[in-house]
Amino acid sequence: MPNILTLRSSDANFKTDLAKLLAFETVTDDSLVATVNDIIADVRARGDAAVLELTQKFDKHPATTMSELFISADALKVAFDALNDEVKAALNLAAERIFAFHQHQVETGFRFTDSLGNMLGQKVTPLDSVGIYVPGGLASYPSSVLMNAIPAKVAGVSNITMVVPAPNGELNPLVLAAAHLAGVNTVITIGGAQAVAALAYGTDSIRAVDKITGPGNKYVAAAKRAVFGQVGIDMIAGPSEVLVYAEGQAADNADWLAMDLLSQAEHDTVAQAIFVTTCENQLNAVQAAIDKALEKLPKADIARTALANRGALILVKDRTEGLAVVNQVAPEHLELSLDNPEEVLDDIRHAGAIFMGRHTPEAIGDYCAGSNHVLPTSGTARFSSPLGVYDFTKKSSLIYCTEQGSKPLAKTADILAVEENLDAHALSARFRHA
Amino acid sequence: MPNILTLRSSDANFKTDLAKLLAFETVTDDSLVATVNDIIADVRARGDAAVLELTQKFDKHPATTMSELFISADALKVAFDALNDEVKAALNLAAERIFAFHQHQVETGFRFTDSLGNMLGQKVTPLDSVGIYVPGGLASYPSSVLMNAIPAKVAGVSNITMVVPAPNGELNPLVLAAAHLAGVNTVITIGGAQAVAALAYGTDSIRAVDKITGPGNKYVAAAKRAVFGQVGIDMIAGPSEVLVYAEGQAADNADWLAMDLLSQAEHDTVAQAIFVTTCENQLNAVQAAIDKALEKLPKADIARTALANRGALILVKDRTEGLAVVNQVAPEHLELSLDNPEEVLDDIRHAGAIFMGRHTPEAIGDYCAGSNHVLPTSGTARFSSPLGVYDFTKKSSLIYCTEQGSKPLAKTADILAVEENLDAHALSARFRHA
Repeated sequence: MPNILTLRSSDANFKTDLAKLLAFETVTDDSLVATVNDIIADVRARGDAAVLELTQKFDKHPATTMSELFISADALKVAFDALNDEVKAALNLAAERIFAFHQHQVETGFRFTDSLGNMLGQKVTPLDSVGIYVPGGLASYPSSVLMNAIPAKVAGVSNITMVVPAPNGELNPLVLAAAHLAGVNTVITIGGAQAVAALAYGTDSIRAVDKITGPGNKYVAAAKRAVFGQVGIDMIAGPSEVLVYAEGQAADNADWLAMDLLSQAEHDTVAQAIFVTTCENQLNAVQAAIDKALEKLPKADIARTALANRGALILVKDRTEGLAVVNQVAPEHLELSLDNPEEVLDDIRHAGAIFMGRHTPEAIGDYCAGSNHVLPTSGTARFSSPLGVYDFTKKSSLIYCTEQGSKPLAKTADILAVEENLDAHALSARFRHA
Repeated sequence: MPNILTLRSSDANFKTDLAKLLAFETVTDDSLVATVNDIIADVRARGDAAVLELTQKFDKHPATTMSELFISADALKVAFDALNDEVKAALNLAAERIFAFHQHQVETGFRFTDSLGNMLGQKVTPLDSVGIYVPGGLASYPSSVLMNAIPAKVAGVSNITMVVPAPNGELNPLVLAAAHLAGVNTVITIGGAQAVAALAYGTDSIRAVDKITGPGNKYVAAAKRAVFGQVGIDMIAGPSEVLVYAEGQAADNADWLAMDLLSQAEHDTVAQAIFVTTCENQLNAVQAAIDKALEKLPKADIARTALANRGALILVKDRTEGLAVVNQVAPEHLELSLDNPEEVLDDIRHAGAIFMGRHTPEAIGDYCAGSNHVLPTSGTARFSSPLGVYDFTKKSSLIYCTEQGSKPLAKTADILAVEENLDAHALSARFRHA
């Protein structure tokens, strides 16, 4: 049997054990932070020269000039045109659906007139330019290109720069094809903290952007944290996780549930797959199905390690307990394998994406449901949202008082400013009501 | 005449000089970061004991037990009831208007059915608990309590904890009155990095929150950056700034414009006040009016220093140049002293709040227009928004496929997962379309 922690809510130590399971924390490594700060300082001081050297050093990239690190629009189109028909159709369908979903997130702002005749409102404006970080090498995913770039396009961002490291100068052509399809404006084959620094501060050849989105390794995460404030960032991504919730209903299929859990566990050795059920027989059946599926899975070693490190099968007494576990985990991906998943929706407070019923595996959401697959990880669904159009726009408040409508407000501001000892504030208001 | 930099767009060095004016950057002080990290580690390790000791040490607070640092709901009400009628009415009007404005920001999510019969959507959920940081001592502003707490209330947050340092145990009673009015649940008189750490990680007596908002000093800013990820944060606040734009129209009043600039400059010695005009006579008149106003202003020393450090009077050739300067500054507060400010609105890409016409000074927005006064500073209006209801909610994607509707999506996911070498993803999808 695979090595997976089993927890039962009836156990005396259940609360402690569950807390321990969820206590994963990326250790802030002082030497890593120092390294990243040095890289950022170097890129700010020496610009292109630093970016080129660091790319040669860390990525073993053979380029000898900056211009070799830029991929032309033609090269992107060539990569797209070279796709076979099946893959091209799949990528097109995914892009269309992502576009359609994100259209629903477009905000238009508002205006209203108060009882005094003053106009108040909110203006929504796309960001001018964004940088999208796409991991290279093993984890180079064309789907991530679509998921980052399309919401930016929908928002109306006119300059999208994508960075993707190319170890030894090699790139997944599908990533380039996806960049073409999503309408990315500039592709640069750089990565790591040096790419984040170049996007945040700009160099002679790389335009500084206003915000950087997309996941990366721990150097990228540390660099994003460091440049936050100079530019916007989306979030600090942690390991990915899924929680599958079931109640042993007749329509459940243990093989499906097992594979849904494994589709998370195969990502990497710290990915987290948690199965929560009210039914002991189902828990055992899913455990056996995982065992069986692992025999044939190419990435079984990674999945086994992930399950042993961070996986869990959790038996709860009833739905109330089950949903309490869901909310405590605040999972990135939540699958509700239930006859009527709508019933529980109101009670789910924290989840990045909710996959409802038996025919909505996470994999559909990863690629082509249309919703975003960049989701809050490691419990951050408590306070953050999927990547969306709202990440690529910003708001400005509008306040437009009439001469008469201004007076009562100016009087109020005058009174409160005096209380706060801000005399120029009070005088500025007083001019308008005196 | 006051010492203020004058720039003219016709000068050869204009671009460089303008860039220099805007190049203010909080230097990341390694020893400050180390101090803050030590404080956070101490609070995580020792909880209440550390919080109490650090509060005694940094705030000279006389408390000898944690419970003395909590302000009871009764004490808040007593503070509110003790206000004089004029101040109480002003605070009430401000609260009502802030509530009314933020009602317009409430989001309800969406649902739609795709052509395959699948449901997709987005669920909006309030955060469970938030922490509001309110600066203490000199800069203890009741208006900030309202501006942070009311959007959280409108969002539906059920637990709002406010922290406010009380140097020597002393507090502005208006801050407590505002907390009562805004419906803050818990008030704790702690501050600094120790307050941020306690809110992020919790102690025996302080409940951990999901997000921390509100401005603070450099220790607070560094602590917020450090705990980002463990909890959400709103932004890293920098010095405040205003840009007043005018074109020398007849309805302008130099005294009003000067006082609007000074209402920013009086905040602190690194606050920034910039006047941009197309009219040289107006530039000179405003300069003279600033000079005159400074003679009587109680905080003239602070304002003079701020104007000398970071202020500027900028003469531009025409509106096009003027709005280019506005967008380059991306000001926190923008005043448009124009006969028809609507004309330029579409061309303004970056500003936290836009005050339109002559009867809408920033001071009205600071207190009682209803829009939020927590705004993106230091050019971060390029990518961020005023504090709003959207900061106190998060979104979850909803995906609910039917058995038939799932098949084409599962097939697409299968194809793309194979391309990304994610076999369990492919198999999980294959179960649904096979």
